Amino acid sequence: MAETSAAVGERLSELLPAPDTAERRVIEAMRYSALAGGKRLRPFLLTRSAALFHVSPRAALTVAAALEMIHTYSLVHDDLPAMDDDDLRRGRPTCHRQFDEATAILAGDGLLTRAFEVVADPASHTDPSVRCELVRELAEAAGARGMVGGQMIDLMVERGIGAQPQDVAAITRMHQLKTGRLILFACIAGPIMGKASPKMRASLHAYGRDLGLAFQIADDVLDETGSAQDLGKTPGKDAAHGKTTFVTLLGLDGARDRARLLSDQAVGHLEVFGPEADMLRAVARYVVERDR
Amino acid sequence: MAETSAAVGERLSELLPAPDTAERRVIEAMRYSALAGGKRLRPFLLTRSAALFHVSPRAALTVAAALEMIHTYSLVHDDLPAMDDDDLRRGRPTCHRQFDEATAILAGDGLLTRAFEVVADPASHTDPSVRCELVRELAEAAGARGMVGGQMIDLMVERGIGAQPQDVAAITRMHQLKTGRLILFACIAGPIMGKASPKMRASLHAYGRDLGLAFQIADDVLDETGSAQDLGKTPGKDAAHGKTTFVTLLGLDGARDRARLLSDQAVGHLEVFGPEADMLRAVARYVVERDR
Repeated sequence: MAETSAAVGERLSELLPAPDTAERRVIEAMRYSALAGGKRLRPFLLTRSAALFHVSPRAALTVAAALEMIHTYSLVHDDLPAMDDDDLRRGRPTCHRQFDEATAILAGDGLLTRAFEVVADPASHTDPSVRCELVRELAEAAGARGMVGGQMIDLMVERGIGAQPQDVAAITRMHQLKTGRLILFACIAGPIMGKASPKMRASLHAYGRDLGLAFQIADDVLDETGSAQDLGKTPGKDAAHGKTTFVTLLGLDGARDRARLLSDQAVGHLEVFGPEADMLRAVARYVVERDR
Repeated sequence: MAETSAAVGERLSELLPAPDTAERRVIEAMRYSALAGGKRLRPFLLTRSAALFHVSPRAALTVAAALEMIHTYSLVHDDLPAMDDDDLRRGRPTCHRQFDEATAILAGDGLLTRAFEVVADPASHTDPSVRCELVRELAEAAGARGMVGGQMIDLMVERGIGAQPQDVAAITRMHQLKTGRLILFACIAGPIMGKASPKMRASLHAYGRDLGLAFQIADDVLDETGSAQDLGKTPGKDAAHGKTTFVTLLGLDGARDRARLLSDQAVGHLEVFGPEADMLRAVARYVVERDR
């Protein structure tokens, strides 16, 4: 994972060159947030699932960098005072604390836009119909029927807007939209790029779906048990806000059990693959055992 | 223009269906801003330039709707308290006043994302390589080296961040990025979709470049002379903020002259076309003579 993280960081830096012109500030803010490190889980999933189908590593890294731009933009906007109002991200001041609020809004917009430019570029795939499919899948995963929709529900629950049922099914759907859809994209981009059989694609789809939810439940557990130093962000905010999470619904042990179950289930979907999928199996175990 | 405005409104409504699920609120905010009317100048330019090359009207309308989504998102984010802090847009409360700040941020993000999904969809063009080119051109026009970059420079000038030369060349470049690039896209999408000759495309490129600047200079004039009722937004804000505009640099008459000169120049670039480009010629005159 450290290797992929370094490689995707380099690719991001290449894809986000800072010009010597007046608008440089917004690109510096984009670089500040995108090159801050982080687990790079999505790029890892994408490059590993692409390797199963012998996709060019350079092309996979390009699409992985675009996906990481979208993940980063969502964090930059999520951290804004009008949203979660966070000061700390990946152990450093959040974008709006390091720059200012307006610059952070624009930097997020710039990252989101650049991601689609990168995916539509021939560097991401030689076949334009594959590039179009990637743009559509990525946009659907990131947009109002995906991540943005999930963020909306999360905010409504937090602020008591509308009558949101706060049971396991509703929280599950919220997370499947908010974080699940982008993780799912990371898992199906490989089979799309490799023009894999529907069966192979369906396997990775099912794997990605279970993995994404396991990841989120583990995140809820970490928010309860982790330290600011390990997490690189302020922990315990959900609990402090009286927010419904998998932990409040299932208890700490119940949430841990559910995450492990989903992780096992995710591994089960990889049966169709041989040892070349061992890395993906290891990721499924990692997401529920990590301490940050 | 009224006909195109109605048609693009209908297409936008089709492309932004509001689901009956929890995230509905963000889609309602997207619809609130996108369906608020407005001049629909960019869709008009796009559908007229597409008609020159016998592009399917339905396809042109689809790409025009996507472009209008991006224009709308930029207004929604621009109006935010951290940016221009506007209460009024197109004669109605701005998105964050009607909903709330977080919802407006997400609605802007949702519109930007949906625009790329729409352009990458087969409904926008049968040839995937054309769709990819449209995505790339649109992303470049909207991103940090285009509109977002222009917004960054505008903010820096307004807030005295960095040492910005505030002469005609610098203001021109800022506007070419901030509003010019998206207007330019509206003019070249037609030749891209119609696989026009490089000469035809270059003509519309030159037309769009001059038209965009004429439009912006006329906007600066209107900000000085227009009424809130005509403009549907708060006028005189630039002057109140002591901001450098074409009017402060060239005077009211000087700015009007410059806008007319650019408008004539824009019309000159259409010489290669016959009477089928008369609508585009009329638009060039309209942008400098309008009162809103």
